[in-house]
Amino acid sequence: MTADVLIVGSGLLGTSLGLALAATRDVLLVDASPDVLRRAVARGAGRVFDGSERVGLVVVATPPSAVARQLVDLQRQGVGFTYTHVCSVQAPVQREVEALGGLPRSFCGGHPMAGREVNGPDAATGDLFAGRPWAICPGPRTTSRAQHDVTVLARDVGAEPVQLDPDEHDAIVALVSHVPQLAASALAARLVPPRVLDPRPGVFDPQAMAVRTAPPLAGPGLQDSTRLAASDPDLWREVLTLNAKNIAPVLQSLADDLAAAAQSLREGQDGGAAVHDLLQRGRAGRELVPVKRGERGAAFATVVVSVTDAPGRLAALLTAAGEGGVNVEDVRVEHLTGRPTGVIELVVRTQAQEQARTVLRAAGWAVVR
Amino acid sequence: MTADVLIVGSGLLGTSLGLALAATRDVLLVDASPDVLRRAVARGAGRVFDGSERVGLVVVATPPSAVARQLVDLQRQGVGFTYTHVCSVQAPVQREVEALGGLPRSFCGGHPMAGREVNGPDAATGDLFAGRPWAICPGPRTTSRAQHDVTVLARDVGAEPVQLDPDEHDAIVALVSHVPQLAASALAARLVPPRVLDPRPGVFDPQAMAVRTAPPLAGPGLQDSTRLAASDPDLWREVLTLNAKNIAPVLQSLADDLAAAAQSLREGQDGGAAVHDLLQRGRAGRELVPVKRGERGAAFATVVVSVTDAPGRLAALLTAAGEGGVNVEDVRVEHLTGRPTGVIELVVRTQAQEQARTVLRAAGWAVVR
Repeated sequence: MTADVLIVGSGLLGTSLGLALAATRDVLLVDASPDVLRRAVARGAGRVFDGSERVGLVVVATPPSAVARQLVDLQRQGVGFTYTHVCSVQAPVQREVEALGGLPRSFCGGHPMAGREVNGPDAATGDLFAGRPWAICPGPRTTSRAQHDVTVLARDVGAEPVQLDPDEHDAIVALVSHVPQLAASALAARLVPPRVLDPRPGVFDPQAMAVRTAPPLAGPGLQDSTRLAASDPDLWREVLTLNAKNIAPVLQSLADDLAAAAQSLREGQDGGAAVHDLLQRGRAGRELVPVKRGERGAAFATVVVSVTDAPGRLAALLTAAGEGGVNVEDVRVEHLTGRPTGVIELVVRTQAQEQARTVLRAAGWAVVR
Repeated sequence: MTADVLIVGSGLLGTSLGLALAATRDVLLVDASPDVLRRAVARGAGRVFDGSERVGLVVVATPPSAVARQLVDLQRQGVGFTYTHVCSVQAPVQREVEALGGLPRSFCGGHPMAGREVNGPDAATGDLFAGRPWAICPGPRTTSRAQHDVTVLARDVGAEPVQLDPDEHDAIVALVSHVPQLAASALAARLVPPRVLDPRPGVFDPQAMAVRTAPPLAGPGLQDSTRLAASDPDLWREVLTLNAKNIAPVLQSLADDLAAAAQSLREGQDGGAAVHDLLQRGRAGRELVPVKRGERGAAFATVVVSVTDAPGRLAALLTAAGEGGVNVEDVRVEHLTGRPTGVIELVVRTQAQEQARTVLRAAGWAVVR
């Protein structure tokens, strides 16, 4: 064996994985694009695979449609001992590997449940996986050694391995990732003006006007709910079609709920009962979403401080918190630039919130709440 | 005149408005709930209205269904000189005020386009409106004096007044606020397990399993896209039914796009073309959404720094940035708690990003990108 890990594909995930491993493992990289490979190597994610080396673990991090073919080709060449991938769809890859005559014993699927709405080696970061779940999806004939190798990989980059059946994994990502992606895209698509402009010239049509004047008036709500819509359409087309079986029913139920709400609003006969029911179910679902590393919202509280927009105020505030023994979990800055005043939200553990307010007030800060 | 402003309703908006005005104006408060009123007064939002005082400006900040009635009653009592409200629906309030025999000259609708997914006086903050648009929606007979009074109110709390026709306003908020609310609720509702559990006992059903195991595996994407789903269903039922005319067609087109994507995935005959088209339109729409105070995403860049999870590292980093003359616009902290390393994203103006990286590297920080 001449190296520890070969990473095939130097996009966001492959390069991030290389960066996360580079300090402790000998990492080889390969990519279909020489330019992408060069950028990944320049980032320090590993050294170039010369095609003859042998490794303990092969990680295929190419776009989904190429994954199974790559895995089986590399198995045939005997490049590695254990083979995995990082695709957000598991069962179809497992089935395709088997159909292509791959070796099911040395293969164990994996999926780091981390990502960004940006792509490529330049967006990579060695901390991408820290604290995130990493699904470990062995097939029926995967050896415990292969599963172990992938689990150790996940732990080594700071992720939390979670063993899942491949089909259950695919149903889960449909819910937590693939349908949210399409919902964000469809919502953002409402802001694109129709190609036919002003079909009735001279007539004031508020709705036709609104689609042009609305976007600059969008606030944090729309910003957050459309963030995923910035993702790469080509990559996502592959992912979504591969997981179509799991996505389609969830997406259909989402569409049905929205169509029912639209009908209720259009007909106006139920006094908004259908809309109210949807809002209530939405709130119940939202309460199940962890806000931070698997913990629910109740574990954290927000301390709000009003500040003048002077340079360095945020640093000074955090210094004051640190000196007072307050551990700040997260920070949110609003409207600091060019405004006479702004507001900084400090997220702290709920049990620490009163201490935080007391400490900051004592240090002269304008604690709003 | 015995006071400057009367705020009717001491919820999130009314109390926030009182807090924003309290330093410079004499503010009176009233609320149907003595407890809510007491909490708003305790927060420093104003003093209790005794029912006999007279003011320059009456601001009705009650739930939407009560707004027009309140406005007209207060006009009849001659409490104020100018009357406005802060409702997220304008045209129906305008029409209802007229239908109830209100005085259209002294009335000018207004809507601060700011809010949170939490409610009540305890969630209020005097900075809620800073940097946000405040729609000014005069009716056909509103005097320029009334419009002026409401515009000055908006400016005094740091908002940016934007004059809009009431119908255009309502079409805009349908796009940027009301439909996103329903989309977030419907998306979050997918996470609620159906009442009938495991319809086929003994059969492994990955999709039925997934709805139970999925929520803890949700990442930032689902967290952001469902944040609005935490909003109050009762309040939103009122808002959404009042603006049904503008919401219904947008919501229907959203449902239609999602249903078409579901059908394309189910039938699998177009190779994902319909899904790809939706993803592309979504990205085009997303590019229209301002990420900060009306500016597009291209104006800002993110500098990513890897840090150890020691207390005070965030403060030290921001201090280093400040000392290097780098103006940090926003901060995002990931996985800092309990992890060996974490990552801090600093948002800076695009033209300042290289300076920021140079300054921080020179100060010994691990700039990832």
